[in-house]
Amino acid sequence: MASILPASNRSMRPDKNTYERKRSVYVKNPYLEGMDEDILYHLDLGTKTHNLPAMFGDVKFVCVGGSPNRMKAFAQFMHKELRLEGDGEDIEDICAGTDRYCMFKTGPVLSVSHGMGIPSISIMLHELIKLLHHARCCDVTIIRIGTSGGIGIAPGSVVITDTAVDSFFKPRFEQVILDNVVTRSTELDKELANDLFNCSREIPNVPTLIGHTMCTYDFYEGQGRLDGALCSFSREKKLDYLKRAYRAGVRNIEMESTVFAAMCGLCGLRAAVVCVTLLDRLESDQINLSHDVLLEYQQRPQLLISNFIKKQLGLCDQMS
Amino acid sequence: MASILPASNRSMRPDKNTYERKRSVYVKNPYLEGMDEDILYHLDLGTKTHNLPAMFGDVKFVCVGGSPNRMKAFAQFMHKELRLEGDGEDIEDICAGTDRYCMFKTGPVLSVSHGMGIPSISIMLHELIKLLHHARCCDVTIIRIGTSGGIGIAPGSVVITDTAVDSFFKPRFEQVILDNVVTRSTELDKELANDLFNCSREIPNVPTLIGHTMCTYDFYEGQGRLDGALCSFSREKKLDYLKRAYRAGVRNIEMESTVFAAMCGLCGLRAAVVCVTLLDRLESDQINLSHDVLLEYQQRPQLLISNFIKKQLGLCDQMS
Repeated sequence: MASILPASNRSMRPDKNTYERKRSVYVKNPYLEGMDEDILYHLDLGTKTHNLPAMFGDVKFVCVGGSPNRMKAFAQFMHKELRLEGDGEDIEDICAGTDRYCMFKTGPVLSVSHGMGIPSISIMLHELIKLLHHARCCDVTIIRIGTSGGIGIAPGSVVITDTAVDSFFKPRFEQVILDNVVTRSTELDKELANDLFNCSREIPNVPTLIGHTMCTYDFYEGQGRLDGALCSFSREKKLDYLKRAYRAGVRNIEMESTVFAAMCGLCGLRAAVVCVTLLDRLESDQINLSHDVLLEYQQRPQLLISNFIKKQLGLCDQMS
Repeated sequence: MASILPASNRSMRPDKNTYERKRSVYVKNPYLEGMDEDILYHLDLGTKTHNLPAMFGDVKFVCVGGSPNRMKAFAQFMHKELRLEGDGEDIEDICAGTDRYCMFKTGPVLSVSHGMGIPSISIMLHELIKLLHHARCCDVTIIRIGTSGGIGIAPGSVVITDTAVDSFFKPRFEQVILDNVVTRSTELDKELANDLFNCSREIPNVPTLIGHTMCTYDFYEGQGRLDGALCSFSREKKLDYLKRAYRAGVRNIEMESTVFAAMCGLCGLRAAVVCVTLLDRLESDQINLSHDVLLEYQQRPQLLISNFIKKQLGLCDQMS
């Protein structure tokens, strides 16, 4: 597979001299090399119990999302789109030994669930990045495909994130390390975002845009919802906040993008965030879509990413 | 069931005059009453689609934990312990329509999974507290039964939390509301913690203690692990941090207790946190217990809570 991929080195932010391989997935931890065994506890995988290079060495695309069922559906969809052998229906959960995360592999595509919120995706990313490192993967692109609340855009719109910002509209992720707070960049790969946007133009009837994505620690009070168990602010304050977010360039709100951008950036992974919006937060707080509409909306980022991956693999012309 | 429970009003912190019912689960949101329908999106339940008082009105104990499988096992275990009809093996997931959380009910006991980390448990708690409110539940005790890393205590020890503290050893939870940071108390019910500790004395071979629990936003860098994808501190700095935590009274580390204590406290729920420790962080970072030992450790908080619930229901004498 590697030969048909562009030999990109756009994401080579870490110092090349420090590390052994070009275009590799970097871990930034001097202690790892000295460990006799590395147990990826929350994935139920390990360097002694599994042959990680054999299992994952050909991975070029990692897609992550909150819901296990959605990530399984995506793997099955990709299996069909890549015209791999079998119908993909019986695709196995590689992390079946744990119920913390699910992981599916089809061809060069890995599909992994991450649960909800920064801490949950952060645990998964630490172990996934180590997995890709142990498996000696190179030229890996990672894309979060998720759901989100929109601001000032029609429900069902797909937002490709140019910059992930925090609750204060700042492009930063504050990581607590021991008891110090370290600020990390949440920059994403602009060329990848543009490539994805260009790809979206070929998909009819799915409004797609590039914008800032706000990442919060909380779905209710932190996103200005009036329908949580706790609410201490007025409707006016809520709307004022969301409108300020809009003016700062925010087009959607979710709960994982800042740490995702920060960790992938530090570890040399070309990263993107592509989320569909389930509602316009200027209009409402509750998600009351019918099951069918919800399902169709959730498939929109999957369709876009599938097209992108096929293009990258040079498979688009003969398949479309 | 209600009549055999102590008519405790120990957790009545919210102002009684503001709310309609005594000993109820309080929501602190003036907007909720005016809503025509409340969709508990992440639980796949709602006030129009489900008869919540009929489904949940008799709930007196809510047990929450990260892992769906563990919370199902706990519900099955409680079913047997309470000697309810049937073997409990076919107990149904009430939230089967979503894969975000799982929920099981057996008699007056509700068992709910919450995923990993503060944001994940916070979404579940907002919707669970609204559920208990809509169902007009009263005298509810809520207990988080989880796994954790210990500090300076033997793996397998059970820690009953007296105070949940943050990464800086402070008994506080910082909630971002719109773009303001509000500090909330993380006090837990001391009498409940003592009751649980007394209960633990009757369980042989399970070392149990009361101590502070530290709650972090991250499993790797935030807990001083040397085995993440990223690590920028020395072994000495790690040990210095963990020893300072120990001196501040911290005996275990997990990722949900501060927001759990803060939200339950505000909403009038008598709350406790009971976690088993899987390793001593002064000794190691990786969890490398055998499957059987891990399973036995995870059952320890369940055993304690089962005994406590049976005592509260006045069922202990005839059953033990």
